[in-house]
Amino acid sequence: MHDAIPDTVATHTDREWDLRVQLAEFYHLVDFLGWSEMIFNHISARLPGSKGHYLVNPFGLYYDEITPDNLVKVDLSGNIIEASRYPANPAGFALHAAIHGARDDVHCVVHTHTTAVSAIALKQAGFGHDDFYGAQLVGRIAYHPFEGITIFPDEKARMAASLGDKHVLVLRNHGIAVCERDIPSTFWLLWTVQRAAEIQCQAGMVPGKNVELSDEVRRRCSESIDHLIEDAAFATSLFDATVRKMRRKRGALWPRDTNLENREQTSED
Amino acid sequence: MHDAIPDTVATHTDREWDLRVQLAEFYHLVDFLGWSEMIFNHISARLPGSKGHYLVNPFGLYYDEITPDNLVKVDLSGNIIEASRYPANPAGFALHAAIHGARDDVHCVVHTHTTAVSAIALKQAGFGHDDFYGAQLVGRIAYHPFEGITIFPDEKARMAASLGDKHVLVLRNHGIAVCERDIPSTFWLLWTVQRAAEIQCQAGMVPGKNVELSDEVRRRCSESIDHLIEDAAFATSLFDATVRKMRRKRGALWPRDTNLENREQTSED
Amino acid sequence: MHDAIPDTVATHTDREWDLRVQLAEFYHLVDFLGWSEMIFNHISARLPGSKGHYLVNPFGLYYDEITPDNLVKVDLSGNIIEASRYPANPAGFALHAAIHGARDDVHCVVHTHTTAVSAIALKQAGFGHDDFYGAQLVGRIAYHPFEGITIFPDEKARMAASLGDKHVLVLRNHGIAVCERDIPSTFWLLWTVQRAAEIQCQAGMVPGKNVELSDEVRRRCSESIDHLIEDAAFATSLFDATVRKMRRKRGALWPRDTNLENREQTSED
Amino acid sequence: MHDAIPDTVATHTDREWDLRVQLAEFYHLVDFLGWSEMIFNHISARLPGSKGHYLVNPFGLYYDEITPDNLVKVDLSGNIIEASRYPANPAGFALHAAIHGARDDVHCVVHTHTTAVSAIALKQAGFGHDDFYGAQLVGRIAYHPFEGITIFPDEKARMAASLGDKHVLVLRNHGIAVCERDIPSTFWLLWTVQRAAEIQCQAGMVPGKNVELSDEVRRRCSESIDHLIEDAAFATSLFDATVRKMRRKRGALWPRDTNLENREQTSED
Repeated sequence: MHDAIPDTVATHTDREWDLRVQLAEFYHLVDFLGWSEMIFNHISARLPGSKGHYLVNPFGLYYDEITPDNLVKVDLSGNIIEASRYPANPAGFALHAAIHGARDDVHCVVHTHTTAVSAIALKQAGFGHDDFYGAQLVGRIAYHPFEGITIFPDEKARMAASLGDKHVLVLRNHGIAVCERDIPSTFWLLWTVQRAAEIQCQAGMVPGKNVELSDEVRRRCSESIDHLIEDAAFATSLFDATVRKMRRKRGALWPRDTNLENREQTSED
Repeated sequence: MHDAIPDTVATHTDREWDLRVQLAEFYHLVDFLGWSEMIFNHISARLPGSKGHYLVNPFGLYYDEITPDNLVKVDLSGNIIEASRYPANPAGFALHAAIHGARDDVHCVVHTHTTAVSAIALKQAGFGHDDFYGAQLVGRIAYHPFEGITIFPDEKARMAASLGDKHVLVLRNHGIAVCERDIPSTFWLLWTVQRAAEIQCQAGMVPGKNVELSDEVRRRCSESIDHLIEDAAFATSLFDATVRKMRRKRGALWPRDTNLENREQTSED
Repeated sequence: MHDAIPDTVATHTDREWDLRVQLAEFYHLVDFLGWSEMIFNHISARLPGSKGHYLVNPFGLYYDEITPDNLVKVDLSGNIIEASRYPANPAGFALHAAIHGARDDVHCVVHTHTTAVSAIALKQAGFGHDDFYGAQLVGRIAYHPFEGITIFPDEKARMAASLGDKHVLVLRNHGIAVCERDIPSTFWLLWTVQRAAEIQCQAGMVPGKNVELSDEVRRRCSESIDHLIEDAAFATSLFDATVRKMRRKRGALWPRDTNLENREQTSED
Repeated sequence: MHDAIPDTVATHTDREWDLRVQLAEFYHLVDFLGWSEMIFNHISARLPGSKGHYLVNPFGLYYDEITPDNLVKVDLSGNIIEASRYPANPAGFALHAAIHGARDDVHCVVHTHTTAVSAIALKQAGFGHDDFYGAQLVGRIAYHPFEGITIFPDEKARMAASLGDKHVLVLRNHGIAVCERDIPSTFWLLWTVQRAAEIQCQAGMVPGKNVELSDEVRRRCSESIDHLIEDAAFATSLFDATVRKMRRKRGALWPRDTNLENREQTSED
C-alpha cells in the first residue's frame, strides 16, 4: 500500500514533516502502551503557521499503521483539505474541533478511554488527588457531562465551556481528552492521568480509608508541576526515551523509518 | 499434519472458501485478543445456500490452530456431514444449534467466558448501561438461567425463548453468546460486550456512585448504534484492521496463508 | 551446562523417560501460563513401579529451565537418591511428601500461589461454587490452616488429614496444592482452580449479589465432571494442545527437544 | 552512542566493575518485571571502599538502557564526581542520600511505585501481614508521611528517622524504598514487598473477612525469614536465576554483554 506515496508529500515543509513524524510516533506510542481502542479515536496536532489546519489519522487504520505520510490534513470541520487515498471521519473530529477552536494555546489533543480511565470517568467523584500522580493533577481537570455517542454540533460550545482553561477534560461516562502546547507535553500529561486512574482503581479495591493530603502539601505539589511544565526539556526527554524504547522492541515503525538507528542500545524482547 | 489435505477442499465453492477463511480468522482473533478458553468453546457460521449446515471447530485444537481446511461441516445436531480427520463435539454445539435453529437472521454465533464477562454473568444485576460501551448495548441483551455444565436437549427451546430477538445472550453463572448477521458484525458486538464487561468490573472496584444516564441519552445512544449496525462497512473495517494487526504480529496464520501480504506496514513486536 | 549430561540418563527406562518429558513439559506450562513464583515451589510425580521414589525440580532453576535430564529423583524425605549436579530442597518437598505418603491414588502434586489463588486462600469463605469453574469444584476441595512458612515434620500428618480424599487442598493464607492420578489430569484440575479464582476475584469487585446455584444444578455439575475425569482422553487432549501452543510460541523447550515438530502449524507471536 | 566509551572505564577496579554489572542487571530486571516508571526513579549502590560514593542512573534513560558504563558516580548530594556525558538528577537522589547517609549497613536502595504498591501506600492501614508474603514482612516495615513531590533538604533527616533500623520504607501516598546489605538481597526483599502488595490488592476486592494469623505463627514466619536473610546464597540464587531468565528472553542486555552465554538453555519467547 506504500508503493504509491502521494506527490503532495514532496511539498511538505520541513517543519510540517517533523510534526508529522512526531505525531505518528505519538500514535504508535498509544498503541505500544495499550491505550488505543482498535481503530477508533484520534490524536490531532495543529499545523504551525496555518489558519486552522490540523493533522489527524484517517478512518480505518490501527494506531500502529499511522505513518507521517498517511496523516490527513483537515480543517476545523474535520473535512480533508489535501488529496488523500484515505477517508476522514468528520464526526469523530468534533471533540478535537471543540478544543482547538477554543484554545489557541493548545497544539495537540488526544482522546482515550482505557479501562482504568473509563472507570474513573464513570464515577460521580471523578479523579482523586491523594496519590502521587493524582496530586500532580490538582487544579488541572475539568468535567463534561455525557450527551450521547455522537457529538452534535451544538455540543462543541458546551464542551469548550466545560474545559475552560484546564488541560484535562473528563468526558463523564466515556473517557478523557488531554491537551497541551506541544506533543511531548500532551504525552506526559496523558501518561500522568493514566497512571492516576490505574492507581485510584487499584486503591479503590482495598478496604479502608486513604491517607488524605493537606491543602499545604497539595499546593506544593501543584507548584512543583508548574515548574516542570515550563521546562520543555523534561517532557521531551520522556517522549524521546519512550519512543526509543518502542523502536528497540518493534524495530522500524514505518517504511523508511529514518529514526531507527536512534535506539540507544540493542536489547530486544 | 497439513501435508494430506482432504480432497474435499477442492469441491468447496468460492463462497464457502471465503467464509472458511473469514471464520478461521475470527478464531485466530479470539485467541490473539486473549478471549479463548484453551481448547474449549466454539464459533459457528451458517453455510450460505445450505439447509442447516454450519462450519465449526473440531474438538482438541486451540483457536490459533484452526485453518480454513480443518473447520468441520455439521448439521443442527452437531454431527459431521463431510469426511474429516478431526472429531466433532456434538454436545458442545448445542448452544449454537439452539440459536441457529431459531433465528434465520443470524449467520454467526460466538460463545466466550473471559474473566470479565464471567464476573458480570455471575451478578444478579447483569450488564449496566452507563458506560460508553454499556450504553451501546441498551435493548440488545437477553438473560438465560444456568441449568448445568452440559446442555440437555430440552434446554435448547428454553434458550431460544430466552434470546428472543436480541443479539447478546448472557448465560448466567457462565458467560455469553453473541450472534449477528455476519462474521464482522458478530466480532464487533463481541468486542463491545467484552469492553463493557471490563469497564464495569473496573468501575465496580471504585467506591462511590456511578453517574447515571437519562432515558433520553440512552435512546440517542441506541439510535446511533442502530445506524452503525446498518452500515456493513463499519464492522468490516474493524474486523479487517484487527486481522491486519494480528498478521503484523504473528505472520502467517496457517500454511499457504495467502492474505499475509495484506499487512499494511512492516512494524513487528 | 548441557554438554555433560550425566551418564545416568542412559539407564532411564523408556517409561521413566516419558514421565520425565511430560513432567518437564508441565513445569514449562506453569511458567508459560504465568503461574510460577520465580525459582520457588515444586511439581512432583511418582515414579511408576518404584517404592516411594519421585521426580522433582532441583533448587535454583526457573520452571522453564527444567529439562527431562535435570529433574532429580528423591525419596519421601526429599533426599536425592541418584547422583545429580543440582542441589535438592528437602524442606520444600514436605508438602509433596505429605500428600504422596498418604494417597496411593495420587501420582502428581503441584503447588502454586498465584495472585488470584492467594487472594481466595486468604479469605475465610474460601472458594465459591456459583461460577462455571467453581461449580465444577463442588465436593473436591479441602482446607488446611497456615502454621508457618516452613513445614515442620509433624505438620505432614495434619496436612494429610486435612486433604482426606479430596484433590484440591487450599493452604489457608498461602496457596493451593492440586493432586490427581496423572500429569494431564493434575494440569486440568489446576487450570480449573486457577480460572475459578480469577473469576471469583473479578466478580468480588462488582457490587451486588451473585446468582446462587441450586443444590440440584450443583449436583448435575458435579456428575458432569465425574464423567469427564473418568475419560482420560479429555485431560490429555487439553494438556497436549497447550504444550503444542507453548512450542509454537517458544520453539524448543530444551536442547534436543524431539517433540518440536509436533506444533500443528507455523503461526508465531 | 556506545562507540565512544569514556576512558574512565579503564580505571575501574575489578570490584567496581562487578558492582556496575550487577547494578545494571538490577535496573534491567526492574524494567523486565514491569516495575519501572518510564525514565523516573533510581536504584543506587554504595561503592565498596569509598567514602560516600554511589553508583546511580543518569537522567533521561529507560532502565533497560542502563549499562555498566553509563552508571554515574555521585556523592551524597547527588553531584557527579567523575566525568560523564550524561546528566545527573541531584533532586531525585535525595531519598537515596537520606538512607545511605544514615545507614552504614545498607549498600543498595531501590525506589518503586508500581500500581499495587501505590495502592497500598495510599491506604491508612498500609501493609497487612496475613498472606504468605505479608507474613514475611512482619517487623520489617516503616512508614513516612508525604510532604510533596520534591524532597526538600530538611526532609532527609525526618525520612531517616522514619526508617529507623527497618529495611522497607513506605512513602505514604507515593510508593516504597527498599534497602539491604547487597544487591541480591535488595532485589529479593523488593520482590517480596511487590508480591505482598499484589495479593493484598487482589484479596481486598473479594468481600468477606481474611483469615488472621496468630502472634505465634507470625513469630515463626519472622524467624524463618531471619534465617534466610543470613544465608547470602539464597538471595543470590534468586537474583542470578532471574537475570538468566531475562537474558533468555531479551538476549544481550548491552553491547559486549559478556554474560550472555550464561543462559542455562535456549528456549525463547
